[in-house]
Amino acid sequence: MVTKINLVEKFGCFTDQWSPKIVADLNDSHVKLAKVQGEFVWHQHAEEDELFIVVRGVLTIEMRDGQVTLGPGELVVIPRGVEHRPVAREEVHLMLIEPKAIRHTGEVVSQRTVHEYARI
Amino acid sequence: MVTKINLVEKFGCFTDQWSPKIVADLNDSHVKLAKVQGEFVWHQHAEEDELFIVVRGVLTIEMRDGQVTLGPGELVVIPRGVEHRPVAREEVHLMLIEPKAIRHTGEVVSQRTVHEYARI
Repeated sequence: MVTKINLVEKFGCFTDQWSPKIVADLNDSHVKLAKVQGEFVWHQHAEEDELFIVVRGVLTIEMRDGQVTLGPGELVVIPRGVEHRPVAREEVHLMLIEPKAIRHTGEVVSQRTVHEYARI
Repeated sequence: MVTKINLVEKFGCFTDQWSPKIVADLNDSHVKLAKVQGEFVWHQHAEEDELFIVVRGVLTIEMRDGQVTLGPGELVVIPRGVEHRPVAREEVHLMLIEPKAIRHTGEVVSQRTVHEYARI
């Protein structure tokens, strides 16, 4: 059974921030949705590239040598090994695509580290 | 150098239909953008799941036992092995994420088969 995913509907299913939800399996990756606000922790993923697509709001991704700021309809791939920190002044609705094996905050463990992702 | 991708800007870079353009590498996959209108060929991918995200327009993906119709902000994963045919009455702007090794029209070769993807 193949069913479509409506982003507005899915973002309406949860309110917690910094806790990505799995909405689909895609080969060895998960498609996840997250609401974020404030500053995340600096971290990197040694083996995995990570795709950020902004659906609502404005997200800055700081890196050690620069930053990108994304609005709705903008996306970026943070390549493996690039240390980064997402920052959002107001709440951002975000789609993430990343390998299933990825660890939420890389080698860093923080209060924000999620060990298991809910499915919605 | 990590640079963001603005979808409107990228869709402004090309006009040809049914000819996906690579905009980013993501692990073993490519992120592609395509403009489509009319009927594609029936095909399947034996080993690869394929993600369709509609950015503009209305896309129907026919399958042998049903169909899904996607508008902007809607997406679907067509799992490996599921025969499908995208159909768009008016032009659709589409983001695709699929393994680098995928063949455009699976085992089928048609006038619409693209063997090499441009990068934009």
